[in-house]
Amino acid sequence: MLESGARLGPVEVAYETYGTLNDDGTNAVYVCHALTGDAHAAGHHGDPDRRGWWDNLIGPGRPVDTDRFFVVCANLLGGCQGTTGPASQDPATGRPYGLRFPLVTVRDLVTVHRALLGHLGVGRLAGAIGGSLGGMQVLQWAIDHPDDIAAAMMICSSARLSAQNIAFSAVAREAIMRDPDFQGGDYYGTGRSPDTGLSIARMMAHITYLSEASMREKFGRRLQHGDAPRFDFRVDFQVESYLQHQGESFLKRFDANTYLYMTRVMDYFDAFGDTAAAAPPGPGGTATRFLVISFDSDWRFDTEHSREIVRHLQAWRVPVTSREIASPWGHDSFLLEIPEYHRTVKAFLARAADETGV
Amino acid sequence: MLESGARLGPVEVAYETYGTLNDDGTNAVYVCHALTGDAHAAGHHGDPDRRGWWDNLIGPGRPVDTDRFFVVCANLLGGCQGTTGPASQDPATGRPYGLRFPLVTVRDLVTVHRALLGHLGVGRLAGAIGGSLGGMQVLQWAIDHPDDIAAAMMICSSARLSAQNIAFSAVAREAIMRDPDFQGGDYYGTGRSPDTGLSIARMMAHITYLSEASMREKFGRRLQHGDAPRFDFRVDFQVESYLQHQGESFLKRFDANTYLYMTRVMDYFDAFGDTAAAAPPGPGGTATRFLVISFDSDWRFDTEHSREIVRHLQAWRVPVTSREIASPWGHDSFLLEIPEYHRTVKAFLARAADETGV
Repeated sequence: MLESGARLGPVEVAYETYGTLNDDGTNAVYVCHALTGDAHAAGHHGDPDRRGWWDNLIGPGRPVDTDRFFVVCANLLGGCQGTTGPASQDPATGRPYGLRFPLVTVRDLVTVHRALLGHLGVGRLAGAIGGSLGGMQVLQWAIDHPDDIAAAMMICSSARLSAQNIAFSAVAREAIMRDPDFQGGDYYGTGRSPDTGLSIARMMAHITYLSEASMREKFGRRLQHGDAPRFDFRVDFQVESYLQHQGESFLKRFDANTYLYMTRVMDYFDAFGDTAAAAPPGPGGTATRFLVISFDSDWRFDTEHSREIVRHLQAWRVPVTSREIASPWGHDSFLLEIPEYHRTVKAFLARAADETGV
Repeated sequence: MLESGARLGPVEVAYETYGTLNDDGTNAVYVCHALTGDAHAAGHHGDPDRRGWWDNLIGPGRPVDTDRFFVVCANLLGGCQGTTGPASQDPATGRPYGLRFPLVTVRDLVTVHRALLGHLGVGRLAGAIGGSLGGMQVLQWAIDHPDDIAAAMMICSSARLSAQNIAFSAVAREAIMRDPDFQGGDYYGTGRSPDTGLSIARMMAHITYLSEASMREKFGRRLQHGDAPRFDFRVDFQVESYLQHQGESFLKRFDANTYLYMTRVMDYFDAFGDTAAAAPPGPGGTATRFLVISFDSDWRFDTEHSREIVRHLQAWRVPVTSREIASPWGHDSFLLEIPEYHRTVKAFLARAADETGV
């Protein structure tokens, strides 16, 4: 049963785990992935070139230390990397859902995470962590189920998108849905898919993931071929080549319908907007400790987004630590090994685990 | 003869004038339009709903005072509002140029402006003014022909685009050129045109013309229909509706090929990049006075772009006045009636005209 009232099932969930669950099931850390992530957060399955997207954060001796913690990461509901989503077969019709897949919410994503933990025998989480959309899941989870999580960590996340955030998502969806190969979402098995729209969406998104300064440093006005500009419409500047590559390579691993669903999940998310969340989450308050991290050059979800989360949590008088970390790399910073950021996560998680006796 | 060495001709130029040229031809002000502008800068041709795009700046008693000045504005070379451009007939083939239209440069745009002034009997300009791409033309003009312009005014302009600027343009062009209706640029007369690509480009550009704060103020997270979200993929937030409207209405007045050419003109522009411009523009310096204005909330061409212009001009020891003006409206500010901005332009232009005896 989804938040919208729609029913969906059965649901398959693709997940990975790292480290070992202790006997009393108290050392688990849940990793929530962002818009285009997947369950492969860490390790490399024997191919060192295919390291998980958060491998610098998760592993033996790393901030999310797999020598101490049992780490779980699952592909999101509505995803395209193993968990049931719009490309999955609708049992009612025997065909892929396409746009008949119900619109899910962040709360629905959390419902699936919790079901997975039940299946794995995990009790209370030592921690939950996520960046961007991942942080939204952690926040919703901690609000709705204050007993579930000891340490809730939201990295460059948001309690609700701004008009500009929604605008970028809206243009991305337009590019996908108006691609003639989109076919109303029923492109599976037709030999055509909205590759143009999806790569345009990805290229545009990539601009918003980097800061202007990091783009200047990385590419400047440097040309791709030699010193002389070509003066035509082909790729000429290095930044054009980079974006084209990002757009193309994305097609190999991502499904356009999932892009629609995940961006819309984010548009509608409003953690403190509904009345249920407008009051403290229980008579005794929450036992969750919160860590809210932003990066000073992130203009996709700037520090003001994090401040809004902090203001609400402080009004509830729950323990919240917030840090704005200096980094030139924009929104993408949450994926990078930035010493102060990693030190902060490591210390926060370790302290919460010490205090709860993990 | 274009800067690239290509030849193009004959060239038609669509232009408008306001006010009256004085007997010695010294009271002219040239208005250079931006990416999607046209020659209709002021007045309304009898239809008050069709006022020119800079009508608040140009007119009797306004900052560019048509009681005193003779104002000229022409559609740019490569444009789609009357001046020869990619939709014009190529005399060599009898068909529209399409992408066989030569890639022009800001210098080429200025060459056409100067030819028009010769035709109109205008001598030295009392002033030249432009915002964004318009300011690039003014800057190039003043550098190459220091005797042409008494008062050169660049509003939220740039001496060269940043990697992020180029990136947005590159994605816009991708959206247009990968639209199946683009047909390699030869869509004229086929009954199909790359409307999807062009409207995606326009929607994305619009996000960059507004500041995040002004989008928040204008739209926030308000819904288009009632209070309850629809939870689907149709337009639901007001900001989505606004962008769709901008994308659609743009199609009625603009040509996709011109969008390609004008964005590429901007990508390649580098006012101080070539060696010819790396030295002062003459033994006695220039007689041009410069005014460089930026807006504090403009993130398309932020104040750093203006500062770069100022730094170069100051190194040449030419008189330059620069102002960063407070405005919440982002890049679009140059089109709006912001008192401090308009006062600054008015005073600067009037003083330069007084001193040169107009």
